[in-house]
Amino acid sequence: MSSSATAFVPGHITGFFGVKRTDEPLRTGSLGAGMTLSDGVTVRVVPEDSDDASTLELDGEVVSVDAVDRVCAALDVRARIVAESVLPLGAGFGVSGALSLGTALAAASALDLSLSENELLRIAHGAEVRAGTGLGDAVAQARGGLPIRLDPGAPPHGKLDGIPTTERRIEYLTFGELSTETVLSGDTETLTAAGRRALSTIVADPTLPTLMYASRRFAREADLLTPRVRKAIQAVGDEGGEASMAMLGNTVFALDEGLTDAGYDAASCTIDLGGATLR
Amino acid sequence: MSSSATAFVPGHITGFFGVKRTDEPLRTGSLGAGMTLSDGVTVRVVPEDSDDASTLELDGEVVSVDAVDRVCAALDVRARIVAESVLPLGAGFGVSGALSLGTALAAASALDLSLSENELLRIAHGAEVRAGTGLGDAVAQARGGLPIRLDPGAPPHGKLDGIPTTERRIEYLTFGELSTETVLSGDTETLTAAGRRALSTIVADPTLPTLMYASRRFAREADLLTPRVRKAIQAVGDEGGEASMAMLGNTVFALDEGLTDAGYDAASCTIDLGGATLR
Repeated sequence: MSSSATAFVPGHITGFFGVKRTDEPLRTGSLGAGMTLSDGVTVRVVPEDSDDASTLELDGEVVSVDAVDRVCAALDVRARIVAESVLPLGAGFGVSGALSLGTALAAASALDLSLSENELLRIAHGAEVRAGTGLGDAVAQARGGLPIRLDPGAPPHGKLDGIPTTERRIEYLTFGELSTETVLSGDTETLTAAGRRALSTIVADPTLPTLMYASRRFAREADLLTPRVRKAIQAVGDEGGEASMAMLGNTVFALDEGLTDAGYDAASCTIDLGGATLR
Repeated sequence: MSSSATAFVPGHITGFFGVKRTDEPLRTGSLGAGMTLSDGVTVRVVPEDSDDASTLELDGEVVSVDAVDRVCAALDVRARIVAESVLPLGAGFGVSGALSLGTALAAASALDLSLSENELLRIAHGAEVRAGTGLGDAVAQARGGLPIRLDPGAPPHGKLDGIPTTERRIEYLTFGELSTETVLSGDTETLTAAGRRALSTIVADPTLPTLMYASRRFAREADLLTPRVRKAIQAVGDEGGEASMAMLGNTVFALDEGLTDAGYDAASCTIDLGGATLR
């Protein structure tokens, strides 16, 4: 029996995005940009010597995450998967992508599967697309920093760039869930047009302030703002700060101490600089 | 006047490589694989309000590094560049690539140049190729970990993959300089054929032990082993360890405590997991 292995995957907040669907999961995904977070998900995979399906515990509770099941099936792995996350599921932090990529990295290491980083990312991205729970988190989380998704999809199809950044403080606050599936299964034409405009903006000026500005404009143009997120972004702006909405979550994020300065009781971390990795 | 900015770029040891030359520097480079190191180069760029050319201090001494001059020219920057490196120049640690990439990252930040990570990497890689001092260090250093260079060149031309890894201990020892220019300006046909064989090996089995094995076989086949490096690799192997030669340097590197166990007084660090970044 192989020993266990652990991976860490940073959280990922998408600031803006557009959707591209094809018949191939590895060419399907989202363009856009966002930030990876030092708060993320730790995934430990303990191979099990049985024919039972894999189990997933998230913060001590047994949960079922379709994309993780698909990763285990793709790798032909039966394991106990133990995940810990400071970030909530379904709130726009890419937790499902982190669980998928973390499971792929840790399972391959625990079982000596001889798969490369790109191959594992392809499996995680494909699982997310097929499950309908994410379109670009895994590729962004693999890179770290402030990833720009120029072209959707997993290697060798997707194309990434990044905004140079330091390990800056980020604050975030969640007002509840927002279903990725519901938004992504609807008409995404207007949203994608707004996402492409925002992408042009960030490519022309790849800086953090422009990421925040383009994200706010996207949230407005794509009509995705919830009332509480809108109010919080406004309040942070009134104090001279920079905030926007995490896509897709009922979540606001801000640079530095933006939310605290606006009177909110927010969680804080920093921008992750390294991307997903084994621990 | 803008304020100063600082970047850290990990050292990079190439285990094996092959050369591809074209008329375009951004399509020119090396294929191969290697490891990035937590020991690296810190580069601080202090913009200067004068028409004088930029100056570079490395560990307190004023030095001239062609690739760095080319980066400054490409960015139209006049600055005082202050670099600190635990790793020696010209010994196979990618210090010249680190200086180039670190200067590009820090200068762009100090002067608010609004350039993306890919754009800065293109500038650093192009400068290295034109100067004749490196063919693949900068792209590997930007990624971190154990980079596999599948296709040579800078984004969007080069293609990278990676070997999944933990932050493992690495030891290294240098017996002196070896000129990159001399080897690279000679006949590289045999070397490149050996490099392509090694690349096939690592793509089929992307693991750290296979990286070490393929690197040793490459060093032998390409006839690049110096007597002292050959002896050290042998001594590490005799103790059950894994070592190979840093391309291109009169330098040996080993996993874990391989050199210490073989009786050498070696420096140590870990595999870098995050890649080049602003500090």
